[in-house]
Amino acid sequence: MSDRIALIEAGGTKFIVGVGDASRQIHARTRIDTTRPEETIPAAIDWLRAQGGDYAAVGIASFGPLDLDRASPKWGHITRTTKPHWSDADIAGPFARAFGCPVAIDTDVNGAALAEWEWGAGQGTNSTLYLTVGTGVGGGAVVGGRLIHGLSHPEMGHIRMPRHPDDRGFAGHCSFHGDCLEGLAAGPSIIARWGASLSDLPADHIGHDIIAWHLAQAVQTFQAILDPARIILGGGVMGTPGLLDRVRIRASEAGAGYFAGDPSRVITSPALGSDVGLLGALALALRAAG
Amino acid sequence: MSDRIALIEAGGTKFIVGVGDASRQIHARTRIDTTRPEETIPAAIDWLRAQGGDYAAVGIASFGPLDLDRASPKWGHITRTTKPHWSDADIAGPFARAFGCPVAIDTDVNGAALAEWEWGAGQGTNSTLYLTVGTGVGGGAVVGGRLIHGLSHPEMGHIRMPRHPDDRGFAGHCSFHGDCLEGLAAGPSIIARWGASLSDLPADHIGHDIIAWHLAQAVQTFQAILDPARIILGGGVMGTPGLLDRVRIRASEAGAGYFAGDPSRVITSPALGSDVGLLGALALALRAAG
Repeated sequence: MSDRIALIEAGGTKFIVGVGDASRQIHARTRIDTTRPEETIPAAIDWLRAQGGDYAAVGIASFGPLDLDRASPKWGHITRTTKPHWSDADIAGPFARAFGCPVAIDTDVNGAALAEWEWGAGQGTNSTLYLTVGTGVGGGAVVGGRLIHGLSHPEMGHIRMPRHPDDRGFAGHCSFHGDCLEGLAAGPSIIARWGASLSDLPADHIGHDIIAWHLAQAVQTFQAILDPARIILGGGVMGTPGLLDRVRIRASEAGAGYFAGDPSRVITSPALGSDVGLLGALALALRAAG
Repeated sequence: MSDRIALIEAGGTKFIVGVGDASRQIHARTRIDTTRPEETIPAAIDWLRAQGGDYAAVGIASFGPLDLDRASPKWGHITRTTKPHWSDADIAGPFARAFGCPVAIDTDVNGAALAEWEWGAGQGTNSTLYLTVGTGVGGGAVVGGRLIHGLSHPEMGHIRMPRHPDDRGFAGHCSFHGDCLEGLAAGPSIIARWGASLSDLPADHIGHDIIAWHLAQAVQTFQAILDPARIILGGGVMGTPGLLDRVRIRASEAGAGYFAGDPSRVITSPALGSDVGLLGALALALRAAG
């Protein structure tokens, strides 16, 4: 029997498809544009077949929101999304039918949280939260060795937030909630306020402090609810030089020493780099198999 | 061997001490004022000895913050508290030495969350959050059958919050964080703003909507991070007539249909009534016993 695992990082712009194994090697990979489900998913299956087609499992780390209720007829489907053509798309089913093996699916950020906890910046801890701050804000968390799920997967970008005193005029950029975390800290909210991405603003621009301050408030909320040993901040916005340290300083001020974890040690960068998507899919598949 | 379990609900004002068993019967109980550790804890032990002294386990649901790290020499101690005499007090140790049996200890709200999930308003769900809104605000959550712990227990009263537009003048009542959830919604914050408890304010007083609105924002944050099947709101402030329904309405507005759970079904009252403290201690003891 094969020990090869088919890996799918399903994003709103592109699918990264790969072949890996339990030793964490990724043997091959390709990129497929995300167009329509009836094009993108068969293209991914064709590529995986061309690699040999014999897989022990399929791991999918997908954009969402997803139906992850195993008892639901829509398990493994995207639910409702603003992305054209993808609402109600069945992601898991076509791979299960094509390869006749177990399919594990969860959100991209849950996959990243699991992979960073198993092999990356959260290794050896009892609790790790992964937050990506980019075009949107999303997060997942491993607590006591398991990913958190309630009625569905977390939507951590949509926590409620206080407002920086110098940022009160901005309504927020989330089409559902206005000034939730995503509405205040994701890339489009930065461009909406200041006309450029954070990394393109001068180093003394107030935007740096406003974004760091909002992320620090989010860190306090995560500490109050989960008290994670690691809070890993990734995504394009976090690539801004100096931002991670600004968040640490602001989070220390906000928490006022109240929580068990010191923000300067708890808050950290991802360790798995650009492979985190495929490694997330791998971690999900290994977890489901094991 | 005895199947009797010693139960301690350790509060800042009083200890309720009882004797129960796995059938959820509570056979006897007493109340001991919380004065100093060297008075209150021996009085609890003496009473438990007078009931027979032969216990299979001790369950303690305590005020906090607590050191719950089993590897720490201070496991089972209160850490730092504003309550005089109780910082660094060993709660679990004296009971373990007195009765020579396993001792389970966790926060009162974690105990309540576990008991409500096992036997109360969260029964049959995969995820239940319990929040008490009284002199302080505290919460615990069961996810996938287990209480959430990170570096320590949750401190859910200290999540960050947006501000109701008609409540901007109030600095908040939390001595650590000002206008965190506890600083905006606990009983003392209500008295600080309006000179009376919420239940004593006229039914058309704006305080009802301001408190409901803040609790609804907290509900959204809980949904975004944990998406619990039940969010149980207890504590003295929640006894205010009409408040639960106001929170449901405001939470539905805030969430804008984004989360899997409908706030009108997710948000509910506790089912275990005034026994929740002792039943929490019982649930913790039974859980630890396996």
